[in-house]
Amino acid sequence: MINKDSLTHHISQQFNAELEEVRSHLLAMGGLVEKQVNDAVSALIDADSGLAQQVRELDDEINQMERTIDEECLRILARRQPAASDLRLIISISKSVIDLERIGDEATKIAKRAILLTEEGESPRGYVEVRHIGQQVRKMVQEALDAFARFDADLALSVAQYDKTIDREYKTALRELVTYMMEDPRSISRVLNVIWALRSLERIGDHARNIAELVIYLVRGTDVRHLGLSRMQAEVQGDKDADPQA
Amino acid sequence: MINKDSLTHHISQQFNAELEEVRSHLLAMGGLVEKQVNDAVSALIDADSGLAQQVRELDDEINQMERTIDEECLRILARRQPAASDLRLIISISKSVIDLERIGDEATKIAKRAILLTEEGESPRGYVEVRHIGQQVRKMVQEALDAFARFDADLALSVAQYDKTIDREYKTALRELVTYMMEDPRSISRVLNVIWALRSLERIGDHARNIAELVIYLVRGTDVRHLGLSRMQAEVQGDKDADPQA
Repeated sequence: MINKDSLTHHISQQFNAELEEVRSHLLAMGGLVEKQVNDAVSALIDADSGLAQQVRELDDEINQMERTIDEECLRILARRQPAASDLRLIISISKSVIDLERIGDEATKIAKRAILLTEEGESPRGYVEVRHIGQQVRKMVQEALDAFARFDADLALSVAQYDKTIDREYKTALRELVTYMMEDPRSISRVLNVIWALRSLERIGDHARNIAELVIYLVRGTDVRHLGLSRMQAEVQGDKDADPQA
Repeated sequence: MINKDSLTHHISQQFNAELEEVRSHLLAMGGLVEKQVNDAVSALIDADSGLAQQVRELDDEINQMERTIDEECLRILARRQPAASDLRLIISISKSVIDLERIGDEATKIAKRAILLTEEGESPRGYVEVRHIGQQVRKMVQEALDAFARFDADLALSVAQYDKTIDREYKTALRELVTYMMEDPRSISRVLNVIWALRSLERIGDHARNIAELVIYLVRGTDVRHLGLSRMQAEVQGDKDADPQA
């Protein structure tokens, strides 16, 4: 069972410092990505193209962070030849950055839609759904990162479970917007911009779920991808019953 | 400079065999994923829900392949502590499987749209575009994998470059379909199914590009993500000028 303290038990102080540093870089990148999601949603809802532009400009910084963290992981793999939970930590970090970078991409796509909606005229519908689903996926990203920071498999499980709710709400919103487009065909182009933004939010939820699954892998040592939620729950909570100290 | 022969120069025959095996598993997974893309597009165009169902059922096998390759990479990292080009090979494989698995997901999404279009009635438009863009992204996936198999950075570069063409054709198709929906609002729901399929194809192109970038990283040792195409080209072709034996 891995936890935060196990990071401090290496013979090499330098190795500890390197692991702690790359982990903190991941969390910093996560914080920026989370802010991007929030700002992109606000830009869309408030028709704030200045804020949308800021989101687009920050995307480069996120890409640069991915590159830096990747290099750090590679250096640790090559020099330290980590094993067991250290290796799992490096693998989880190097995969999580891919999801964080793609969350950043989706935030940029939402920002582009925000700019189009400011230029071409606001959509008559869908803002309530963007705000609502946006708040929820932002919370998913935040909690997935908290779970990573605290090695908390239970919190990670709840993030993965929540993705189902997002998928359901996304589908409901989509159906309503399609109906609306049929009633008012002149709105199609503008409503589609909102639909693309909702689609990006739904994908952000998927990426948050991926990160949560990596946290479970990190903490429990089990690859829970594609297992289905009930088996995932058994893996996370079953382990806990077997080891009440966990 | 890495090439196929460098795989055969390890002191340990066993290590060679392990590297060759994981690489051949990646290529086998790639072959299946490529077939999935092809079948999903055929199922949609031919309104063949039986074929679409097959695509959906094979997704589990792809997920299982991802898991197996991941385990192999992890085992090699832990036991062999690879360095330099071997480490790059393992990193490239472990990242490429993520893209291959997501290409498989997108093929499954196209198959779902094919089933909906068979049930709810075919769309009046968009099939020509699906066929055309489908053929092109399938070729991208195939060539990205060929580039991986042959350590061919030039072929990988051309795959990455081709993604721009896909993006442009996707946008053109989208504009036409939106215009069509405005003219015939009763078709919205069916045309949207085609739009989602096109969107999946466009994303498959993105994933093929990611794999191509990993091939360039593998062969040249340079991380070319987010560099822009002209700098990517300079990295691939500049190197070649510097070393005509490459």
